[in-house]
Amino acid sequence: MTDISPAARQLLDRLNRTLPKAAFRPLGPAYLEEPRGLYTGHACAVVAPDTVEGVAEVVRAASDLSVPVVPYGGGTGLVGGQVMADGPAPLLLSLERMTAIRSLDVPSGVLVAEAGAILQDVQDAARDAGLLFPLSLAAQGSCRIGGNLATNAGGVNVLRYGNARDLCLGLEAVLPDGSIWHGLKALRKDNTGYDLRNLLIGSEGTLGVITAASLRLFPRPRAEATAIFAVPDPLAALKVLALARAEVGESISAFELMSHEGLDFLTETMPQVRQPFDVPPEWSVLVELGFTGPGDPEEALATIFEAAFERDLVSDGRIALSDGQRAEFWTLRESIPEANKKIGAISSHDVSVPLSALPDFIARGNKVIAGLGPFRVNCFGHLGDGNLHYNVFPPKGHARGEFDDRKGAIMRAVHDLVHECDGSVSAEHGIGRLKVEDLQRYGDSARLAALRAIKRALDPRGIMNPGAVLAAE
Amino acid sequence: MTDISPAARQLLDRLNRTLPKAAFRPLGPAYLEEPRGLYTGHACAVVAPDTVEGVAEVVRAASDLSVPVVPYGGGTGLVGGQVMADGPAPLLLSLERMTAIRSLDVPSGVLVAEAGAILQDVQDAARDAGLLFPLSLAAQGSCRIGGNLATNAGGVNVLRYGNARDLCLGLEAVLPDGSIWHGLKALRKDNTGYDLRNLLIGSEGTLGVITAASLRLFPRPRAEATAIFAVPDPLAALKVLALARAEVGESISAFELMSHEGLDFLTETMPQVRQPFDVPPEWSVLVELGFTGPGDPEEALATIFEAAFERDLVSDGRIALSDGQRAEFWTLRESIPEANKKIGAISSHDVSVPLSALPDFIARGNKVIAGLGPFRVNCFGHLGDGNLHYNVFPPKGHARGEFDDRKGAIMRAVHDLVHECDGSVSAEHGIGRLKVEDLQRYGDSARLAALRAIKRALDPRGIMNPGAVLAAE
Repeated sequence: MTDISPAARQLLDRLNRTLPKAAFRPLGPAYLEEPRGLYTGHACAVVAPDTVEGVAEVVRAASDLSVPVVPYGGGTGLVGGQVMADGPAPLLLSLERMTAIRSLDVPSGVLVAEAGAILQDVQDAARDAGLLFPLSLAAQGSCRIGGNLATNAGGVNVLRYGNARDLCLGLEAVLPDGSIWHGLKALRKDNTGYDLRNLLIGSEGTLGVITAASLRLFPRPRAEATAIFAVPDPLAALKVLALARAEVGESISAFELMSHEGLDFLTETMPQVRQPFDVPPEWSVLVELGFTGPGDPEEALATIFEAAFERDLVSDGRIALSDGQRAEFWTLRESIPEANKKIGAISSHDVSVPLSALPDFIARGNKVIAGLGPFRVNCFGHLGDGNLHYNVFPPKGHARGEFDDRKGAIMRAVHDLVHECDGSVSAEHGIGRLKVEDLQRYGDSARLAALRAIKRALDPRGIMNPGAVLAAE
Repeated sequence: MTDISPAARQLLDRLNRTLPKAAFRPLGPAYLEEPRGLYTGHACAVVAPDTVEGVAEVVRAASDLSVPVVPYGGGTGLVGGQVMADGPAPLLLSLERMTAIRSLDVPSGVLVAEAGAILQDVQDAARDAGLLFPLSLAAQGSCRIGGNLATNAGGVNVLRYGNARDLCLGLEAVLPDGSIWHGLKALRKDNTGYDLRNLLIGSEGTLGVITAASLRLFPRPRAEATAIFAVPDPLAALKVLALARAEVGESISAFELMSHEGLDFLTETMPQVRQPFDVPPEWSVLVELGFTGPGDPEEALATIFEAAFERDLVSDGRIALSDGQRAEFWTLRESIPEANKKIGAISSHDVSVPLSALPDFIARGNKVIAGLGPFRVNCFGHLGDGNLHYNVFPPKGHARGEFDDRKGAIMRAVHDLVHECDGSVSAEHGIGRLKVEDLQRYGDSARLAALRAIKRALDPRGIMNPGAVLAAE
């Protein structure tokens, strides 16, 4: 039974008077869980206003009464930013009833979506207008665009189009005092004062609540082609990337690394997923090209393969011959996290390093992990961005539960190495509650002091998602 | 004679003890002027440390003694951000002795430059490594990269590559308390806390001093082609842009609008600049394509021209047949600001509007100006970004001095219209001191309160470039 504080009772009384009945949602368990099962949250209630004014009323009331507020999108975050387990039970502020695509301006290439819009619905609306909204990630069927922005989501197309931050031109948001920022600009250039937009993006609900966003749309590639190449090692993979860049420049939409281990996990847990090679290669890369101009991307893939083969950078390869096969290649890549889940990671790491440091990082990481025990490593991810999911698993025949006591040491060893390589211990998932200590440990101290000062300045009562990103003060 | 406050004297005494002699620069008049002659600043001294530690020592000392500091780059800013005319004489902190290219990592596509590096030198270093640093603007021979970042500079390649903000991966900076943020990351993805980088970028020296930056490099286009098309009106120009996008997608490097008036100004003041058409067309666009992949950009330009001609969107056109002619086209475009200067604008406006609102903005603007008097308008700029330089001139045979009393009314009328069109009154030049009142007038009140709170939080003594962006408190 959640303990509801007197302040929270007062808040609910006030909101019962000011919000419509429909804004109150049953507090089902889904609101208090997160995908990796690391946290179980609590809450005094879930409210879901359907207007920005409703959201402002909630935040104003919570601010008046100093009740914590946890903004809630699709609930798909992987670092516990959406669940608060400690302290007085917060109010969950869900954006699920603000799902409208408010406008779509084709000549300007701008779509305005409310924060609760499902990512896939935003993609579909863009496609229906003949354009592309390129943010694309595994959870796109259930994550919401407000959450994508609050966490600066990444995904498979960052290499070409950037992360959520790069796709956003303007925001409507409720600030921690309940004021509404009407900032839905549709401008490519606007140098009028400090960049509040990028400050809210990636702040994981700790500096305000995003209620709507104007988003950049792109021309759809006319022709796309996808291939999987077997490569001897990550350095060769990077050299293939350089070859591809020299051949087609910015037309590389995705360049994803897969390891032998990942393909083995698929064979073991999801044999229905078709694999392109009879024997899983040590390493492989999924390359996707999209041409908006002239030329044939399939031919370009063949040219890249030949150039790489001559230089011993690839040993085998498959270019998809149909849209069905392209989809199959992507299913392979996108099933890896599911296979990981079935095997059960002891510790997962979402890291990035400079491209030039990447092969060394992987080699040293594997040595470090081998020094800790007979663990298996599945290292895969967005190679073109230097973003690896470096996940550590128990030896075959063992369950992760047997190694709970090693989890901390493994994570620490991987993150120490990332830090040595001048990398990031959270490339795309954010800090949430999972990595608050990592941010303290590895973050620059002048920067951390500035972040704390900003938090205190914008949220002096500390009501917005307390305990996420920065330790509650 | 500048009046030096007792605090400033104390500061100079302290710096004389702690900084090397070479860090003190003679206070020549160039430091106190700005390109448009709108302000004359004052200063108690100019110091130019050659290390980040030296910059930190200066800021720490200034903070201890509450002496204002004005960071100084190339001095090319157009809104008076680099000159302080009011209040006690500040210390000018010049980055002119921090000009090193610290590193260039080709596989990662990252160059680290100190803040005082001249933009052109950064471009050249990238080119020498076979890569492209795409920031490009008229002042590139004298502006410094730190100033470009502090003002989030734009220029002619924003359409394709983004503005200075989009080209920066990490910063080294001295914060207003004199602490050093070592943030020279070379990562494409890094979601570890609030976006301090983008907060400093565009803050015009009011939140800290950028001392170095890691910058993104791009593949150089293999083949480039440039054309000038005569178009009947801005709406047709936008339709040509849409056609070009459909034909070559993201390969459009620049799409610049020029008006009849601008070409007339060139004929009048710079007859040596070669013009492509015997009779200057009412409107024209300079289109540049750069292909990193297959295809011939000249052919693509011809295809675009034909498609546009069939639809009556262009009446005439010239595709450059040599690199010399390409350079000539760019000279034409880039001489327009010089011609403007010779004619003498009563009021210049650096504005942006959503692309779909742009033709209406120009039509309404011309009516508004006609209602104010027999003025001439030269409207030109970065059409593809919705960024127009909408500049108002005296009637032929008159000097701008005759209309000094109309300047305020003209600017107000143009900016009111921009605001109605949901645009920005400073697309690429920033707020500086020139547009502080505009920001107050047109800015969202919740956002402005947040910006002030951020300024107070990071610079509680108000020493960093006081009076720029936000009125001094």
